[in-house]
Amino acid sequence: MAKSIKIGILGLGTVGTGVVKLLEQNGDIIAQKLGQPLKISHILVRDLNRKRDIDVDPNLLTTDPEKIFSDPETNIIVEVMGGVGAAKEYILKSLKRGKSVVTANKDLLALHGKELFNASETHGVDLLFEASVGGGIPIIHPLKECLAGNRIRKVMGIVNGTTNYILTKMTREGRSFSDVLEEAKSLGYAEADPTSDIEGDDAARKMAILASIAFGTRITYHDVYRQGISNLTVEDINYANDLGYAVKLLGIAREDEDGIEVRVHPAFVPLKHPLAAVSDVFNAVFVEGDAVGETMFYGRGAGSMPTASAVVGDIIEAARNFQHHDRGRITCTCFYDKPIKPMGAVVTKYYLRLIVKDEPGVLASIAGVFGEREVSLASVVQERALNSSAAELVLITHHVREQNLQDALKILADLPVVKQIASVVRVEGGED
Amino acid sequence: MAKSIKIGILGLGTVGTGVVKLLEQNGDIIAQKLGQPLKISHILVRDLNRKRDIDVDPNLLTTDPEKIFSDPETNIIVEVMGGVGAAKEYILKSLKRGKSVVTANKDLLALHGKELFNASETHGVDLLFEASVGGGIPIIHPLKECLAGNRIRKVMGIVNGTTNYILTKMTREGRSFSDVLEEAKSLGYAEADPTSDIEGDDAARKMAILASIAFGTRITYHDVYRQGISNLTVEDINYANDLGYAVKLLGIAREDEDGIEVRVHPAFVPLKHPLAAVSDVFNAVFVEGDAVGETMFYGRGAGSMPTASAVVGDIIEAARNFQHHDRGRITCTCFYDKPIKPMGAVVTKYYLRLIVKDEPGVLASIAGVFGEREVSLASVVQERALNSSAAELVLITHHVREQNLQDALKILADLPVVKQIASVVRVEGGED
Repeated sequence: MAKSIKIGILGLGTVGTGVVKLLEQNGDIIAQKLGQPLKISHILVRDLNRKRDIDVDPNLLTTDPEKIFSDPETNIIVEVMGGVGAAKEYILKSLKRGKSVVTANKDLLALHGKELFNASETHGVDLLFEASVGGGIPIIHPLKECLAGNRIRKVMGIVNGTTNYILTKMTREGRSFSDVLEEAKSLGYAEADPTSDIEGDDAARKMAILASIAFGTRITYHDVYRQGISNLTVEDINYANDLGYAVKLLGIAREDEDGIEVRVHPAFVPLKHPLAAVSDVFNAVFVEGDAVGETMFYGRGAGSMPTASAVVGDIIEAARNFQHHDRGRITCTCFYDKPIKPMGAVVTKYYLRLIVKDEPGVLASIAGVFGEREVSLASVVQERALNSSAAELVLITHHVREQNLQDALKILADLPVVKQIASVVRVEGGED
Repeated sequence: MAKSIKIGILGLGTVGTGVVKLLEQNGDIIAQKLGQPLKISHILVRDLNRKRDIDVDPNLLTTDPEKIFSDPETNIIVEVMGGVGAAKEYILKSLKRGKSVVTANKDLLALHGKELFNASETHGVDLLFEASVGGGIPIIHPLKECLAGNRIRKVMGIVNGTTNYILTKMTREGRSFSDVLEEAKSLGYAEADPTSDIEGDDAARKMAILASIAFGTRITYHDVYRQGISNLTVEDINYANDLGYAVKLLGIAREDEDGIEVRVHPAFVPLKHPLAAVSDVFNAVFVEGDAVGETMFYGRGAGSMPTASAVVGDIIEAARNFQHHDRGRITCTCFYDKPIKPMGAVVTKYYLRLIVKDEPGVLASIAGVFGEREVSLASVVQERALNSSAAELVLITHHVREQNLQDALKILADLPVVKQIASVVRVEGGED
């Protein structure tokens, strides 16, 4: 068989280990597809002597990145070390030396995508990143290529497995957020410091990447509104279920005549919506295009082997482009410079739970405040006495501007009859 | 802007009209992505004067295919005329003249795929067919490229919208097959002659295409076992629901050490399986790979614009390959010649409904027949008297070989205590 195509891997953590395993395990079918075998030439590690989960030829390991970049035979670099410091430097160096890069690094792309894509374009090589969103789920390529004939209207996804696991458990077992979080940590589904997952930062990075591709305009992490799930209560989840909704941490990216909105926050999703059935650590991305209509991509959004599946798919593509002298065939697709809507201009529906004084006329005065701010109520779902002096009021609004709702809530908070604005959760996935 | 890339379209029916509309509607973003506009140079039609749903420049229309093939400026041919006669001839002619071909023609690919792919390879051009399975859903490219690092174990799909619509209606409204079929015809969801859809032929063609890609071996329409939905009763659907299943027409392709199985038949699918929630005319394809695990692709499996979305995605790819002198970059991937299992060797679970004499010892003698044939019963779900002399017996088996079950059923049919074998439906999507 023909000479092998050589690959340098930066990092041998969870994903790196999966990539090494998968290239070994399925090397035969990959070589068959490419007509040439793939061969790992170098693996950059921090510690040469660390005990590892896999058997790997110690001669491949190096602590010196320069050894990899300066090897003229290594044409594909796989960055699976993570972080935005050294990883960025190494990717840029690789691109400059004419090597194609495959990366799973969402943090880096969501912050410095423009610089990285510019470099890949300048040097005529590939920068592929299927693994950066949705783990093993094919979503970047379908969005960038298969759906390229569509004007994308909306991308809506469950793109963080940790929070989906927590919300699924809270829903099924009626347990509190903190209780389930502790269990998720002990099972390895949540990190010791789970902030990035539970506060929506991780999802925001992925949505920045998806929105950039969907709308052809550069969206960074900082453009994404985000709100996490730590304030959600079992009470709200129970109300959601009673009303026919699942509670999910959603990433939503929409374009309309006023611009682009990209936001990550908990939401009520109608049980009949395909995203409502996406449970546990599974991820799914729902895409709406003007021709294709509604489509959805579902699978494991994280983990060693699922992520390796996406990385290896990209390695095969980079290898094919190298064989065909066709590197850099699809570069950055952010051709436009579209405005980002302020969050106040977003229009959606809301679920509200208020604790109020249990006395006559309370609902009327609350409805009055909403009315003045053009917040129209769809229904008063529940109105029940909590004790001799307090009642709970559960409301669902029609579509309203976020700013109007926030203004109304500010006034309500100061109203003597309102004891507490207990919950505000957006309602998504119904008719727009 | 640069010179346009010219496209010849064969056929201006439902899909052809969608393609013309979409190229017009989103021509700006497509040109942006390619750096060159796409331009329709010819459209082959049967009747120049027919009234059509769209405004199309009459100068583009022709009844002479040779005019298209002989135009050296037209480099991409889109075959959306359907059928396996002229379509095959025209595709082969196009490939021979060095033109890339985009087709939505599942009938043709499922019968003559090998010959067509050989021709595209010989002439170094593309033969792209994303629209042939699942309408607008990206599934061919993800399976062939993004998931290329996986050994695919199983592909399971709802790949026919007409039957899914009928089963959804039967389930929700408790109406009979024939009643819903008539309604589907009047709404245009079923054709005047619905045989190909309801008998599973259409799904079998799509499964032949998916299985060929998934397992790297040529599967034709004739290799696919098929059974339609016309014998399903509301009674069985109600039992399924009571037992926690949805009833779907499934296409299933699996590989194990004994070979490949590809089959289309109605099945009970556990309600918690992602395919169970795929309703109405929607399609979904569930793919299981050794690295990626479970993944699913969901969307509209038919219709003018969704199908056009897939066709235009392929046109863009063919145009890009033309620009980059990289046509024929991914050719046929059927490298192997794997054995197809006889249907009798397939192992699955079964739901059985029998009408028996209502007398003591009946269950024992039936269980005895199953036991002799190594058909192990998981549960006797229901045993109820229908009238003074007959009872209904509903059983679910463990995993058994199809041949063993069929042998047992043959013996049962001759047993004096068995009045009728009312239903036999496979149970899929649980633990293998």
